[in-house]
Amino acid sequence: MSSSFGRLFRISTFGESHGGGVGVVIDGCPPRLELSADDIQPDLDRRRPGQSRLVTQRKEADRATILSGVFEGRTLGTPIAIVVDNTDARPAAYDHMKDLYRPSHADFTYEAKYGLRNWQGGGRASARETIGRVAAGAVAQKLLATAGIDIVAWVSEVHDIVAKVDADTVSGADVDEAGPTRCPDPDAAARMVDSIEQARRDGDSLGGVVTAVVRGTPAGLGDPVFDKIDATLAHAMMSLPAVKGFEIGSGFAGTKLTGLAHNDAFVPGPDGPRTATNRSGGIQGGITNGEDIVMRVAFKPTATISSEQDTVDRDGIATTLAAKGRHDPCVLPRAVPLVEAMARLVVADHWLIQRSIDVLGPTDETT
Amino acid sequence: MSSSFGRLFRISTFGESHGGGVGVVIDGCPPRLELSADDIQPDLDRRRPGQSRLVTQRKEADRATILSGVFEGRTLGTPIAIVVDNTDARPAAYDHMKDLYRPSHADFTYEAKYGLRNWQGGGRASARETIGRVAAGAVAQKLLATAGIDIVAWVSEVHDIVAKVDADTVSGADVDEAGPTRCPDPDAAARMVDSIEQARRDGDSLGGVVTAVVRGTPAGLGDPVFDKIDATLAHAMMSLPAVKGFEIGSGFAGTKLTGLAHNDAFVPGPDGPRTATNRSGGIQGGITNGEDIVMRVAFKPTATISSEQDTVDRDGIATTLAAKGRHDPCVLPRAVPLVEAMARLVVADHWLIQRSIDVLGPTDETT
Amino acid sequence: MSSSFGRLFRISTFGESHGGGVGVVIDGCPPRLELSADDIQPDLDRRRPGQSRLVTQRKEADRATILSGVFEGRTLGTPIAIVVDNTDARPAAYDHMKDLYRPSHADFTYEAKYGLRNWQGGGRASARETIGRVAAGAVAQKLLATAGIDIVAWVSEVHDIVAKVDADTVSGADVDEAGPTRCPDPDAAARMVDSIEQARRDGDSLGGVVTAVVRGTPAGLGDPVFDKIDATLAHAMMSLPAVKGFEIGSGFAGTKLTGLAHNDAFVPGPDGPRTATNRSGGIQGGITNGEDIVMRVAFKPTATISSEQDTVDRDGIATTLAAKGRHDPCVLPRAVPLVEAMARLVVADHWLIQRSIDVLGPTDETT
Amino acid sequence: MSSSFGRLFRISTFGESHGGGVGVVIDGCPPRLELSADDIQPDLDRRRPGQSRLVTQRKEADRATILSGVFEGRTLGTPIAIVVDNTDARPAAYDHMKDLYRPSHADFTYEAKYGLRNWQGGGRASARETIGRVAAGAVAQKLLATAGIDIVAWVSEVHDIVAKVDADTVSGADVDEAGPTRCPDPDAAARMVDSIEQARRDGDSLGGVVTAVVRGTPAGLGDPVFDKIDATLAHAMMSLPAVKGFEIGSGFAGTKLTGLAHNDAFVPGPDGPRTATNRSGGIQGGITNGEDIVMRVAFKPTATISSEQDTVDRDGIATTLAAKGRHDPCVLPRAVPLVEAMARLVVADHWLIQRSIDVLGPTDETT
Repeated sequence: MSSSFGRLFRISTFGESHGGGVGVVIDGCPPRLELSADDIQPDLDRRRPGQSRLVTQRKEADRATILSGVFEGRTLGTPIAIVVDNTDARPAAYDHMKDLYRPSHADFTYEAKYGLRNWQGGGRASARETIGRVAAGAVAQKLLATAGIDIVAWVSEVHDIVAKVDADTVSGADVDEAGPTRCPDPDAAARMVDSIEQARRDGDSLGGVVTAVVRGTPAGLGDPVFDKIDATLAHAMMSLPAVKGFEIGSGFAGTKLTGLAHNDAFVPGPDGPRTATNRSGGIQGGITNGEDIVMRVAFKPTATISSEQDTVDRDGIATTLAAKGRHDPCVLPRAVPLVEAMARLVVADHWLIQRSIDVLGPTDETT
Repeated sequence: MSSSFGRLFRISTFGESHGGGVGVVIDGCPPRLELSADDIQPDLDRRRPGQSRLVTQRKEADRATILSGVFEGRTLGTPIAIVVDNTDARPAAYDHMKDLYRPSHADFTYEAKYGLRNWQGGGRASARETIGRVAAGAVAQKLLATAGIDIVAWVSEVHDIVAKVDADTVSGADVDEAGPTRCPDPDAAARMVDSIEQARRDGDSLGGVVTAVVRGTPAGLGDPVFDKIDATLAHAMMSLPAVKGFEIGSGFAGTKLTGLAHNDAFVPGPDGPRTATNRSGGIQGGITNGEDIVMRVAFKPTATISSEQDTVDRDGIATTLAAKGRHDPCVLPRAVPLVEAMARLVVADHWLIQRSIDVLGPTDETT
Repeated sequence: MSSSFGRLFRISTFGESHGGGVGVVIDGCPPRLELSADDIQPDLDRRRPGQSRLVTQRKEADRATILSGVFEGRTLGTPIAIVVDNTDARPAAYDHMKDLYRPSHADFTYEAKYGLRNWQGGGRASARETIGRVAAGAVAQKLLATAGIDIVAWVSEVHDIVAKVDADTVSGADVDEAGPTRCPDPDAAARMVDSIEQARRDGDSLGGVVTAVVRGTPAGLGDPVFDKIDATLAHAMMSLPAVKGFEIGSGFAGTKLTGLAHNDAFVPGPDGPRTATNRSGGIQGGITNGEDIVMRVAFKPTATISSEQDTVDRDGIATTLAAKGRHDPCVLPRAVPLVEAMARLVVADHWLIQRSIDVLGPTDETT
Repeated sequence: MSSSFGRLFRISTFGESHGGGVGVVIDGCPPRLELSADDIQPDLDRRRPGQSRLVTQRKEADRATILSGVFEGRTLGTPIAIVVDNTDARPAAYDHMKDLYRPSHADFTYEAKYGLRNWQGGGRASARETIGRVAAGAVAQKLLATAGIDIVAWVSEVHDIVAKVDADTVSGADVDEAGPTRCPDPDAAARMVDSIEQARRDGDSLGGVVTAVVRGTPAGLGDPVFDKIDATLAHAMMSLPAVKGFEIGSGFAGTKLTGLAHNDAFVPGPDGPRTATNRSGGIQGGITNGEDIVMRVAFKPTATISSEQDTVDRDGIATTLAAKGRHDPCVLPRAVPLVEAMARLVVADHWLIQRSIDVLGPTDETT
C-alpha cells in the first residue's frame, strides 16, 4: 500500500526495476495546462543513469510516454498516466543475490514484510521507482510556473567536502552548468569529482547533502497541525531512497542558538511584513511567510559497493557478498532532480489546497 | 484542513489555546482494549505546564474526559473522543499582541492564510493543541504494549550541552527519575538546569534535541515508497511545534562515512538475520528490520522571550515587543512526551496496516 | 474506522446513544464564515425526538456547544468541534436487551464485528449519531448560502400514501409549515398522521420515502469516475440509518423508458444550455449540469416495535422480544433534516473541490 | 480528481476512450496471491464490445498487460499496473460531435467543469474507463476466493421485461450459459433479445436492472456510520456509467411493508444466529450478518441513439443530432461484469479492513 502521495495533486507510482516498466498516474492536475512529453523528458534525462562517469553506467533511454489525460497539447483534468519502459534490464546480473540479503539494502525487510521479493535489481525498492516521481514533478512545475514559483536544488556536500553556495541567488542554470556533480561551487565540485572517482576505485561509496530552495511562494501555504508544509516536505524527502535526515531553515544547527539570536525579526516590506533573517526557512507554524523555503536533505553513502561484505543468506547462514552490478559510487548528483521533484509535488499540492480555503471574501468586507 | 493524522489508527485533534477546550477523536482503535481515563492522565501530566520551574508556570489541570468509544472499561471499536477543558486561559494577557506579529511565531502566517486569527495565546498554533496528540498516544501505547513494543524518548541535548546516554539500554523509568530536565545523564542534566535558569533570567530561551528509540517492533513494518516508516516518523515529528530537523539512524553524520563503514553487515541471529551495527536506525528501504528504531528531533529555542524584539504591526508599522505571558525558557523537557506520542501513533498505524498485508499464507505453503 | 466523511469539507462524528455525549469535528470549513451555535440549533431541533406525537418521546434538549474553530463570531479555518450532551439516557430501559439481538437492528452485527457492543440504546448505531451530521450540515449550509445554493427535503411517501408535491417550486418554508409529518401535501399529510398513529396503536411501524432537491448549483460540480456527485450522494444517503434505496433523477422508473423518451434534449438558455426535461436529475456523467438535483431516499419501517418478535439470545437460544423503550413509529419526519444535512455536506465538499480545479484561465485566453 | 476507489484495496483508473490506452493501478493487494494476465482476460472478454449483435460492434481486443506488481506468478504486495491499448479508435467518427453536446451525455458537463474536453468518443466519460475496474475486480476476486466469497450478477430486467431468477441458487455458470443477454431466465431472455433488436431497428435504446448477490461473507464486514458496506456498494454502483438507482435488500418495495412484516426474525443456526427472512439484504447497521448480500442496480436506457434529437452547439445555437458511431442499444448485458467488479472491489476492501480490527483476542480471554 501507499504508493500514493499528495491530496489534491495526487500521484501514484508503480513498477519494479525489472519488469514491463515503471510509471506514474497523476490525479488532480488542473485542466488547460499546456503539456507534452517534451516537458517531462529533460528532468528524466537529469535523473537517468549513464550521464557521466560519476554515476552508474546502466543504460536506460527512459523515454516517457503519456498514455492519458492530455488532449491537443493541454491537460484534460483527468488522470495523466506516464509510462517508461525498462529496456536495459539484466536480471541475470542479480542471480548471485537471489538467496542472500545485501547489507543496508531492502532485500531482507521486503522479504520480512511480504514473504517474497523481486530479487532482480532491487525490485520496487530500486531507484527506478523515482522515475515516476520525476515525471510527475515536471508536471507540477508547469503548474507552479503559472504562479511564479521556482525550485532549485544542488549538491551542497559530498562526504567531508562542503560547498559554498549562496542560497539566495543560485539558479537552476548555475546548477546545470556546474557539470556532473551538480555542485555550483567550482572548487568544491572539482574536489568532489576526485573523491567520487577515488571511492569508485576503492570499491567504496560516498554520501552527502542536497540543499533546495523554493522561491516565490506566497505567504499562507501549508496546513496547520499535521500537514504543516515543512512536515509534508520532510515526509516527501525522507521517502526518497537513501535519505537519513531532513532540516528546514536553521535545522540542527539552530539548536545551538538562543531564542534572541534565532528569532527572525519582522521588518516592514513593500507588500507586507518581511523578516530580517530567515532562520525559519520560510515557514512559521507550518505555513509559508513568503520568504524562501530552504531545506537540506542527507543521503547516506550508496549501499551497493564492490568491496566484499559480511552478510547472511535466506537460510540464515553467514556468507560474503561483493556487488557485481552497475552502481553509483555517489548518488548525490542524481538525487538533485529527485529532491526538486518532491519539493514541486509538495508545493503544488499545498498551493491547490489553498484555493479551497480562499473562497470567501475578507472579514472586513463582510462586516 | 488536515488536523488528522494516520490511516487506520487515525486521530483528529481540535481546539485553540483559548476557547471551550481541546481534544482528539481517535478513529480505528481496535475493540476490546482495556482503557480508562487513568491510562491517559499520566502522559498528560508529563506534558502539562507548571510541572517545574524549568517550564511555563501556566496552570492547567488538563483533566481528560473520555466522551465516547469506551464501555465497561473496554474500547468499542468506535471513535474515542477525549476532551480537556481550558481552565487557566487569560486572554487579557495577550491583548497587547492583538495587532502585531510575534517574531518566529505563527501570528503573521495564520493571518496570511486565513485572513483572521485567534490572537489569544497562539490559538490553534498553541502547544495546547498537542494535548490531543498525547492523549491519543497513550491509547496507541496500550495497543503497542499488546505487541511488546515500547518507546522511550529523552532530552539528549540542550543548547551546547550533549548528554551521554546509552540508547540500547535507557528505560522510561530512567527518564522519569532524571527529574525535570528528562535527561537521564545526571551530569548533563545538572548543567542543563543551570543553562535553562540562566536563559530565563536573561529573558532568553534555549533549544535542543530529543532522541527516541522504539524497541520490540517486528521486522516488516512500514510501507515502501511514500509511506516508509521513517518518512511517516519524519512527518509526525516535523508536525510538532518548534521542530526544525529530523534524523533516523546515522542521520547527517552518516554522510561523513563511506559505504564500507556505513553499511550494517548482517549476522546470523537466533530468530533470523540481525545486523552487527545499526546505522540504519532499524529501518531499511522504509521497512523495519527488527533492530531498534533510533531517531533524533531538533527543537529550536522557544520563540517567546521577554527580551525586547523588533517586529511590525498589522498596519505594517515597525514596533517592538517584549513577551509578558507565561512561557517556557526551554521546551525540551515537555517535548519528550510529544515525541513519544507521535512515535506511538506512527508505529501503531503501521502495525495495524501490516495486519491487512499478512492475510495469505506463505508462498511455500501454497506451492 | 470510517466515522469520517468528505474530502475538503470533512466531518468526523463520535458518540454513542448513552455515554458522555455525541458530536462532530468539522475540518476544512473555510475561514471568515459567520457562525454561532444559533445557526446550528434550529436544525438540531428539527431532528430531535419529542417534537410531536408522531415520533419518539425520548426527551433530549440537544443543545449544541461549539468548543473550537470559531472566534468573535467567525470561523477560523481550524477544526470546529461541536458537542451535544446525552441528558435523558435511560440505560436501565435496555437491560432486557443486553443478552439478545433485536431483529433488523445492528446488535448482532456489531457484536460479530467487534466482539462486544454497547447494548444501551443502540450504542454507536443509534440515531443519536446523526446529531453530529445535522450540526455539520448546518455549517455546510452557511457556506452554500454564500454560493446561492439551497436544499429542500420533504416526506413524499409514508407506507402506501404518496404525496403530490411540485419539486420545482416547493420551499423549505412549505415543509416547515406542513406540520409534524413534514409532507407539504395537506391531504397526504393528514392520511399519513392517521396511518402513523394507527401503526403506533398496533405496536407496528411504517417506512417511506424522502425526496430532496438541490437548487442553484452551478454546472460543473462533481468528480468524474468514482466521485461522481450522484455516487457521493448515494454514499451519503445510504450511510443514514434505515435507508434501503437511493435514486437520482428518473431512478428505477427510468428503466421503463426508451432512450428517445428518456434523453433530456438541450435547449438554448440565457446563460448557456438548459435541458427541456430533467430525467438526469441535474447530473450528467456524475457532474452537475445546472438543473435541479432531484433524489429519492427509501427508509425501511422502524425496526423497533412493541409487538412480540422471534429472536435468539447471545447463547444462540430462541426467545422472543417486545420493545419497551421509547421509539418512533415512523422515522420519516425526523429523516428530513438528516437527508438535508447529508446533501449539504456532499454539495459543499464538491463545491470546494471545484475551487482547486478552476485555477487556470480558460484555454482560449492562453492560446 | 478522484479516479481512485477503496481504502486498503485501492484502485486508480486512467485513460480516455481515444488515446494511448486505458488501465488501472491496484495498490494494496496482499502479496503471495497467484496471478497472471489469464486471470484477468476472461472478465475483460465479458465486458468488451462486439461480443454479440445485442451490443456495440466496436472491435477491441482489450488485451491486458500486467506491467508491475507480479513476479514469478505471484503478487509482490507492490502496485499492480495493468494496461490495455486502444486499438480500434476511430476519432473521425466523432468529428461531427466536436462542437455540440449529445443529450444526456457528459459532453456539456465536462466542458462546464474543465473548460475543455476530449470530444473523441466520450473521452474519460467513455465506458472504456470501466476496463480498469473490471481488471481490478478480477484481481479482487482472486483474493475473495481465498476467503470463500463469491459474487454473481445477472440481468433481471430489460425495459418492462422482468425475469424470474432465484437469487438463492443462481450461479455464475447459469449466467454464462444464458447467452448474450446474461439473463438466466430463458423465457425472459428470449423476449429481451426481441426487445433489444427492435430498439436497435427503431434507432432507440433500452434500460433495465442488474441484480447481484454476494455469498459467503462472514458476519462483521462493513464499517459503521459513513462506510457502511451498503453505502460503499451504493457509491461503487452509482459511479458506473448510466446508473440511476440502487437498492439493498427490500429496497424501495420495503417501504410498503410495516415493521412487523419487514423485520428479519433471528433463528438459531448451526454456527450462530441466522435470519428467517432476508429483507435486510445481508446487512444490518451497515455490517454483514452472514446472509447473502442482495442488491439491485438501475441502468437508464443508453443515451446514444441514432434517432434525431434536439440539442445545442457550443455557441448556444439550437441544432439536431443523430448518432453515427457504433453503440449499444442496451448496455445491460455488458453491465453485468461491471456490477460484479465493483461488488468485488468493495467486499475485498472491507474484508482487508476487518483484518486490522480483529487484532486483539476476545474480551472473555483477557478478563
